[in-house]
Amino acid sequence: MPSDAHDAPVMEAIAERRARIDARLSVAVSPGDPADLYAATRHILTAGGKRLRPTVTLLVAEAVVGADPTSVSYDAFPTSDGEQIDLMAAATAIEVIQSFTLIHDDIMDDDAMRRGVAAVHEAFDTELAILAGDTLYAKAFELLASTGARPDRVVEAVELLATTCVEICEGQAMDIAFESKPQVSTDEYLRMVERKTAVLYATAAAVGAILVGAEEAVVDAVYGYGLESGKAFQIQDDVLDLTTPSAVLGKRRGSDLIERKETLITVHARDRGVDVDAVFAAVQEEDEAAVEAAVHRLDEADSIAFAATKAQSLTQAAVDRLMLMDDSPARTLLVELAEYLITRGY
Amino acid sequence: MPSDAHDAPVMEAIAERRARIDARLSVAVSPGDPADLYAATRHILTAGGKRLRPTVTLLVAEAVVGADPTSVSYDAFPTSDGEQIDLMAAATAIEVIQSFTLIHDDIMDDDAMRRGVAAVHEAFDTELAILAGDTLYAKAFELLASTGARPDRVVEAVELLATTCVEICEGQAMDIAFESKPQVSTDEYLRMVERKTAVLYATAAAVGAILVGAEEAVVDAVYGYGLESGKAFQIQDDVLDLTTPSAVLGKRRGSDLIERKETLITVHARDRGVDVDAVFAAVQEEDEAAVEAAVHRLDEADSIAFAATKAQSLTQAAVDRLMLMDDSPARTLLVELAEYLITRGY
Repeated sequence: MPSDAHDAPVMEAIAERRARIDARLSVAVSPGDPADLYAATRHILTAGGKRLRPTVTLLVAEAVVGADPTSVSYDAFPTSDGEQIDLMAAATAIEVIQSFTLIHDDIMDDDAMRRGVAAVHEAFDTELAILAGDTLYAKAFELLASTGARPDRVVEAVELLATTCVEICEGQAMDIAFESKPQVSTDEYLRMVERKTAVLYATAAAVGAILVGAEEAVVDAVYGYGLESGKAFQIQDDVLDLTTPSAVLGKRRGSDLIERKETLITVHARDRGVDVDAVFAAVQEEDEAAVEAAVHRLDEADSIAFAATKAQSLTQAAVDRLMLMDDSPARTLLVELAEYLITRGY
Repeated sequence: MPSDAHDAPVMEAIAERRARIDARLSVAVSPGDPADLYAATRHILTAGGKRLRPTVTLLVAEAVVGADPTSVSYDAFPTSDGEQIDLMAAATAIEVIQSFTLIHDDIMDDDAMRRGVAAVHEAFDTELAILAGDTLYAKAFELLASTGARPDRVVEAVELLATTCVEICEGQAMDIAFESKPQVSTDEYLRMVERKTAVLYATAAAVGAILVGAEEAVVDAVYGYGLESGKAFQIQDDVLDLTTPSAVLGKRRGSDLIERKETLITVHARDRGVDVDAVFAAVQEEDEAAVEAAVHRLDEADSIAFAATKAQSLTQAAVDRLMLMDDSPARTLLVELAEYLITRGY
């Protein structure tokens, strides 16, 4: 369903932080030499995006230290032991990693559009797209190492981000392998989503906690929050692809079916005996009525409801993990953000 | 000229360290899940290579602390303040970065062979080659962060490696841009080589110094040593391509000319008024006589001698930077290694 009035406070909190994240991203990845390489690195990064992952980093840090974001600056952010760090550098690092993965994924998946603009390998070429991704990859580690936080905390954050990047590659490799795999189980699908999508949400949250000096139990809890809500986010994406009109979605409704992409919904439907390959074949005409019929077929098998219910239970698990932290306005926003991820309209 | 008896001690030192580096690489990047992704990450990494960069890391650390490699273990290596670190993890990180750049460069340059085996994008496919490079990229940062060295030193090493990776991407982008540039100056060419090749030698050296606690002046000096000898290494590669018989080179003699690749030699020849485009055109037949005539044309313009002399003066500058350090067997090996880079036969 589209976002409604109940989302207002979290939408405002996201918008406020997004503006500050955008400003920093533009400086952190500035035009440079060679000019075309840096234009390619900035192409997707400056084309918008909700900046949800870096927003999670900021909110977690705020919740850990009980900071009031109206009176603190994110580049001189208080830690639990009274020092000041450039928290925004770490938040930016997370978005830069996300941007690198989008650029390389679009090459691998041969996707032509991203965030309403041409993908980097289309706007430039494949060589520059590979290099732009590689450049952003390094920039992210530069940024994460530059917060001025206590060195042992920086090392912990760097190790976590590096391990996470390995897992993202594993998840993308699994996703590609699913295309030629006769049967994918729901467990396999969820393991893929965890690595490809959820671990970066988890790391976005954990890095915010690590750098301000949270206790290990809190770091673990917010990592779990990010992991569960990241999985819920991806499953909601799969649901929205089938249930949202093309005009609202910004891409063709049912595009996952047209691309024969396995999702939690198709995996569940196969388990229920639905001939999903026939469903894929039926929508190749790409007309609205064929997509409507396909969605109806998956709905009859309760597969869409199964996915929506799974997203809700993952979100509940995510929210439960936060209850280890003291109550604060930032913690409330993190709860609302997790709920927003599965109630958003697109 | 081919290596001769005068190289024996440094060849032995390289061989000894290479065996230990190889053993660690095989564990650091082990087979994993998904199996094809990890097979792709190991494809080039386990196909040989001289391991010169990680050898530089080890030798620099030995020279800084005056260690005797016959009695120390590289995974419990003494620092200047009496702690022990896993120096081999850092050396391995450098080789893993090198391997990532080879995999992505081969995609960009559409090179089919590497180290005597099929390039990763040929042996697997482009998608897995992009992902294998991305996986190694992260593994390198994981390794570099795992030495157990003092956290402030680890952060310094991570920042340096990240900045270096940005520069390597810039160098590769410059190299690609040269293909469609009407005139490249020797300064531009040397700036490209510095970023594409030399900065990783420089960082290999500097990381060895940083992690064992060398003074800043020593870190700077060994960085300079790596930078100058790294440039010399690349220029010598360009010379060898023209002067070494195909059978010794392991690839066709004159392949740079056949691929119309600008090198210091062609850039110099253009400055001297040689019609290098005509030279490129003349070798397209790929017969030995045509290559011989082309080499003769470049030799007449003193361009090969110019490059060889430049490599020698860079090597001398590299060696001079080492004189800040106390004399030691490891320092002597570093001097000999720099000389080996420009006297090696292939």
